[in-house]
Amino acid sequence: MSMGDRRNLSMVMDLYELTMSNGYFIEGCDDIATFDVYFRRVPDGGGYAVFAGLEQIVEFITEMHFDDDDIDYLNSLGMFDERFLEFLRGFRFRGDVCAFDEGTVIYPGEPVITVTAPMIDAQMIETAILAQFNHQSLIATKTARIVRAARGRGVSDFGARRAHNMDAAVYGARAAYIGGASGSATVLAGKMFGIPITGTMAHSWVMYHRSEYEAFESYARLYPDDTILLIDTYDVLRSGTPNAIRCAKEVLEPMGRRLKGVRLDSGDLAYLTKEVRRMLDAAGLEDCRIVASNSLDEHSISSIIDQGGCIDAFGVGERLITSSSDPVFGGVYKIAALERDGTVVPKIKVSETVEKITNPGRKAVYRVYDSTGHATADLITHDYEEVDLSEPYRCIDTVRPWKDVVLTDCTAKPLLRKVVSKGERVAPFVPLGDIRAHVRRQLSEEIWEEEQRFENPHVHHMDMSPSYYSDKMELLRKSQSPGQ
Amino acid sequence: MSMGDRRNLSMVMDLYELTMSNGYFIEGCDDIATFDVYFRRVPDGGGYAVFAGLEQIVEFITEMHFDDDDIDYLNSLGMFDERFLEFLRGFRFRGDVCAFDEGTVIYPGEPVITVTAPMIDAQMIETAILAQFNHQSLIATKTARIVRAARGRGVSDFGARRAHNMDAAVYGARAAYIGGASGSATVLAGKMFGIPITGTMAHSWVMYHRSEYEAFESYARLYPDDTILLIDTYDVLRSGTPNAIRCAKEVLEPMGRRLKGVRLDSGDLAYLTKEVRRMLDAAGLEDCRIVASNSLDEHSISSIIDQGGCIDAFGVGERLITSSSDPVFGGVYKIAALERDGTVVPKIKVSETVEKITNPGRKAVYRVYDSTGHATADLITHDYEEVDLSEPYRCIDTVRPWKDVVLTDCTAKPLLRKVVSKGERVAPFVPLGDIRAHVRRQLSEEIWEEEQRFENPHVHHMDMSPSYYSDKMELLRKSQSPGQ
Repeated sequence: MSMGDRRNLSMVMDLYELTMSNGYFIEGCDDIATFDVYFRRVPDGGGYAVFAGLEQIVEFITEMHFDDDDIDYLNSLGMFDERFLEFLRGFRFRGDVCAFDEGTVIYPGEPVITVTAPMIDAQMIETAILAQFNHQSLIATKTARIVRAARGRGVSDFGARRAHNMDAAVYGARAAYIGGASGSATVLAGKMFGIPITGTMAHSWVMYHRSEYEAFESYARLYPDDTILLIDTYDVLRSGTPNAIRCAKEVLEPMGRRLKGVRLDSGDLAYLTKEVRRMLDAAGLEDCRIVASNSLDEHSISSIIDQGGCIDAFGVGERLITSSSDPVFGGVYKIAALERDGTVVPKIKVSETVEKITNPGRKAVYRVYDSTGHATADLITHDYEEVDLSEPYRCIDTVRPWKDVVLTDCTAKPLLRKVVSKGERVAPFVPLGDIRAHVRRQLSEEIWEEEQRFENPHVHHMDMSPSYYSDKMELLRKSQSPGQ
Repeated sequence: MSMGDRRNLSMVMDLYELTMSNGYFIEGCDDIATFDVYFRRVPDGGGYAVFAGLEQIVEFITEMHFDDDDIDYLNSLGMFDERFLEFLRGFRFRGDVCAFDEGTVIYPGEPVITVTAPMIDAQMIETAILAQFNHQSLIATKTARIVRAARGRGVSDFGARRAHNMDAAVYGARAAYIGGASGSATVLAGKMFGIPITGTMAHSWVMYHRSEYEAFESYARLYPDDTILLIDTYDVLRSGTPNAIRCAKEVLEPMGRRLKGVRLDSGDLAYLTKEVRRMLDAAGLEDCRIVASNSLDEHSISSIIDQGGCIDAFGVGERLITSSSDPVFGGVYKIAALERDGTVVPKIKVSETVEKITNPGRKAVYRVYDSTGHATADLITHDYEEVDLSEPYRCIDTVRPWKDVVLTDCTAKPLLRKVVSKGERVAPFVPLGDIRAHVRRQLSEEIWEEEQRFENPHVHHMDMSPSYYSDKMELLRKSQSPGQ
């Protein structure tokens, strides 16, 4: 089940989508448009991003409809033709959608989702697709960075209270799990997506009880198999840790149980956790895990580990759930082609800013792997081109088009797959664990370490087939003499 | 109507709220707890924040309940006592909630919302209250900054596509309106909250038509009373502006209409808008407004205006809807008192970090106004104290407690008002326009200009009554000899 089932989000759109659609309707437009979703810049200066949100995008597109009260509201605006409103009343999305598999590593400039649909249908889904794509890809990408910094230690999402409202908490937890988090504290995310959820006690539990020890004792009797004690309410080293050890000895061990962990949520984590570890070990609690949280991100986690902090798992809150150091994933939705009377006309948007120039036409995208299985480049071609890498293949490096690039001993995998056909979902539901495993496999086996590092990551090669590149250049040249 | 009516968000909580509540239930806890919601730091180094989200918080609290599938899920975790799950099945919030009026200017450290309820009830609403408070207050505060920078020009929210998912788009639009935005592009926000919505065309409209002029002509015929033309698809000065002028002359004027506006979404806005203004004026279109957007925020808007850019209204997207320069509003939920067997025991959380020390006990908060009607300080007292400012009133400046502060010729207004009593809403619904007007009135009449400026704003005085201050100090002293 999903929250999407229980409310109608079809009106999460910018008004201009409706003013334009009303216009297309009145003009009798029956063009088939192709729009591309892509992003321009990796957040945090990273070398790659993780695509997330596809499941909710497919749900949205296949369920989009207007209820009577939507139509009433639109009618009250006094802007729309009555026949258009009648059309909306019966509207269902009629087009095709292709997309990369959810969890695929993505790079700037390549179409991650393409929509080919009657102009109105394609226009009206813009905002909702982007909001979902941008949000979940942002959080999945940020989480992948944090998980990398944790070097094998667990990372759990603790961010709901600082999320940008309820969806951001719940879908943020989903995206974080895709990006490699081991779980979330958010209960609804566990219910909706089957994400492992974790949680123990807050300071209020300790402050409610007559003493810290009594709070620990009570908790240990309640949850003897899963006792994690919050040790920083009063004083970590003088009170919290000794009380936790006493609880392990006097409450848990007589029950044949071990203290599973202690948690710190404040203070100098590098220093304190070393001391706590020492004290736990001295008491024979070598298997007691130390969990820490407190405004963590990839940089503070790296630093704490470098300082020898003894932390087995990190709870990461606001800086993960808002991607606070770079909270915008700038995905855009741009028209690439119009099919009019059976002829497909590629469309290009020129701009003074080079990165804002679009890639025209209907395209295919391939990930190119070298003989070691590493992804060496992505390749954009016309959708009708054959790509045969069994022979050396000449292509264009879009950043250095003067270079003679020849792919040899490589394989290519097409990345765009149809997920919606004539308005119907055709891609199977992918379990969240599989999406998460797909991310992990790529990062461990396919994506160069040099692209994953935080400082000056290698910029992934974005190549084009010679035919596609020369057609794009031709369109750009023509656009210089517009006669608009 | 609201989205909240149509889905159950009660499980947007951190798991520890349930592990603790299960414990309180089993222990037979019948204490009445008081929790405070407050924040510690104004985003962007500002001098004040705007409180938003109360309406949704009251809705959440009064509607919170667990459906059968929630209980089934919780049962499947194998952590909870059966009787506790039965209790949850019949759960309705039983406590009281007091809050500042929505739209009130707020300062760090003061309780903006207080919850007094059975321990379990108070604990379980923590995450949802905070997520709503933090998100909407963040966006309202950011928008107030942007609106200030625009110096009377309109600011419209264009951010849905970059919002952190659907709720962030919709409740973000609501919060932006509270903070002073004139409207939003997001249709669902218009439908749900009656916010004025705006929208014209995207580049795809222009690219769809055979020429820019034809796109303009067609749009003007569709919306002659409200024609705003996007002039930057090809070339603002050589193509967009001349075509817009021609459209005004050849399409609109023969219909007896005027061109309402032009919009730019790229390029050097300071330079281009001056040129566009000159061209429009030379064509007799002095009344044609110029609307601009493109990664704007309070700083770029200030700079464009200082450079003489001719912009009548700003569309602000990602930097408003994510508060990208500081996307976390660090509101917290801390226990302040426990009522046990009829006795109220104040609770304090000590910390090495001074700002993290809580204000214990049940409190009242007053805003103190001087004879000019300006808010000179906020004052925290015990909830049972009388504050009489008809006589000189001695109080404690919490930052400089050694100072002798005497309030003379001042008035005081209590800020906390009961909004939920024994689980029932007792505060009337406040129309959004009234909340917005409340913000505007405070910022123009009550809040010192020195607190509103961006650079080194004056820090609002947070005072305490002598009795409250000495009781807090006494608790702090006692906490130094814990015997935990």
